[in-house]
Amino acid sequence: MGWKDGFIAVDWGTTNRRAYLLDGSGRCLEEFEDPKGVLAIATAGFPAAAAEIRNRLGDLPMLLAGMVGSTRGWVEAPYVPCPASMEELTQRLCWVEPGRTAIVPGLSSTAGGNWDVMRGEEIQLFGAIAASLIPRSAIVCHPGTHNKWIVVVDGSITDFQTVMTGEMFSLLKSHGILSEFMSGPVAAGEPFREGVRRGLERSVLTAELFSVRARVLLGSLKRDDAADFVSGLLIGLDIGVGLGLAGEAELIIMGRPDLARLYEVAAAEAGRASRSVEGADAFIAGALAIGSRIE
Amino acid sequence: MGWKDGFIAVDWGTTNRRAYLLDGSGRCLEEFEDPKGVLAIATAGFPAAAAEIRNRLGDLPMLLAGMVGSTRGWVEAPYVPCPASMEELTQRLCWVEPGRTAIVPGLSSTAGGNWDVMRGEEIQLFGAIAASLIPRSAIVCHPGTHNKWIVVVDGSITDFQTVMTGEMFSLLKSHGILSEFMSGPVAAGEPFREGVRRGLERSVLTAELFSVRARVLLGSLKRDDAADFVSGLLIGLDIGVGLGLAGEAELIIMGRPDLARLYEVAAAEAGRASRSVEGADAFIAGALAIGSRIE
Repeated sequence: MGWKDGFIAVDWGTTNRRAYLLDGSGRCLEEFEDPKGVLAIATAGFPAAAAEIRNRLGDLPMLLAGMVGSTRGWVEAPYVPCPASMEELTQRLCWVEPGRTAIVPGLSSTAGGNWDVMRGEEIQLFGAIAASLIPRSAIVCHPGTHNKWIVVVDGSITDFQTVMTGEMFSLLKSHGILSEFMSGPVAAGEPFREGVRRGLERSVLTAELFSVRARVLLGSLKRDDAADFVSGLLIGLDIGVGLGLAGEAELIIMGRPDLARLYEVAAAEAGRASRSVEGADAFIAGALAIGSRIE
Repeated sequence: MGWKDGFIAVDWGTTNRRAYLLDGSGRCLEEFEDPKGVLAIATAGFPAAAAEIRNRLGDLPMLLAGMVGSTRGWVEAPYVPCPASMEELTQRLCWVEPGRTAIVPGLSSTAGGNWDVMRGEEIQLFGAIAASLIPRSAIVCHPGTHNKWIVVVDGSITDFQTVMTGEMFSLLKSHGILSEFMSGPVAAGEPFREGVRRGLERSVLTAELFSVRARVLLGSLKRDDAADFVSGLLIGLDIGVGLGLAGEAELIIMGRPDLARLYEVAAAEAGRASRSVEGADAFIAGALAIGSRIE
């Protein structure tokens, strides 16, 4: 049975994995998610972990993407340097079992003295292009723990930059001197926008963060608004990085609606229009686009 | 018995307190340190905690400085706005028991849209001036969890800025994705200096931090050098903030010798000479300078 007749696609991340059974017409017939992410599996345990997926979904070819191709995964799939197209990604698949089990490689970018890597977002991004969720040329903002700014030109990824916005917010919310002020959810009101404006000025984060405490102590910022301000500050700095890559390209925000909304407000504060798209089906679309190219 | 005949000075911080018995000639006759910092004492417990100090060192006037004057301390001593001199600090003492027990107020700065506070460093800084450890006009860098840049003009503090460098380094070392790379001690070698240079370019911290991971994965930075690079990056950003306040003033680094050395190397990377001074006796000198001004 070849790839064109259907296959299994697995989004295999650090803490969980999600597997999809796709038929020859591209429909998803069955799927499951479990907490058997890369960190939960010993290096020698990957063949058994993959067999378990086939036991549930069928004895079919299997396309794996995400951290399963990292140094802590099954087999390291070397990064493909940018610029990279969907065709190159397919040619550079890392075959664990020839013809039967392949890992999608991640991408690297070393342009302009920056050093960056992605693993897992590339298949979603190419899927979003293949499914016409996003245009073939754009700057795509992909918010999350590690926000990715991805420059897409004529269907290829030419450059990208990761900003550790979500992780930094979590660190500050859970630990350290500001955590006592940062309990509530974030709203995109005036304190958020004030933070954004400070961030867009490319202020120095470690200096601004202490000022949050001082603002609260001196009465210039309400304690309940501190999390909004910090979120705005981090996203404002983040937007500044992204717009530096963007040129005149259309700004697309692809991710969780709550986060996308914050980035949309922040982009508007920078005088930049943006469009939010849901990326929910992008992974499957990317897997199908790669699967259809495998001979 | 008046203040001129001797008094007790207490450096009462968040997690511990250090008390000194000073005689009329300024000599320290006895001292002790214990873990009874502000957080260890209930609000109603401060009179007893102060009485305990007098039981150990004598029934004398007492000058308290540090977080004991914060909202979580004994009595809140309102911040004195910059510019502030030693005379103003003395006039604005917060008297808990008139003539007998005083708390030194902290300072605030709201110049140029910044918001900043200090509590505890001001007495050390004025002490260092009084003891001629530092000149009467300088920019003083006071490294620690929260590094303070303090602008001193003709013996007064005219402005200051706090940068959360030490706290951020600890957060990154203990939590999050970079912590696995950051186990060793920091050395001021080439990876540190490369980080400093990135920081001096006012790069965006959250973007640079992810690049540390990418540099290691792509082989541009040794895993063992990651902590040096991150430290350099944070201190480079910090130095950039400080030199923005400094003008042509002499740059003095006052603090723990290991940290002072890192800031010295980073300042040199920015083309700026600096001089390190030990601040060990500055607190006592500051307490004596204030005590001698009390009628």
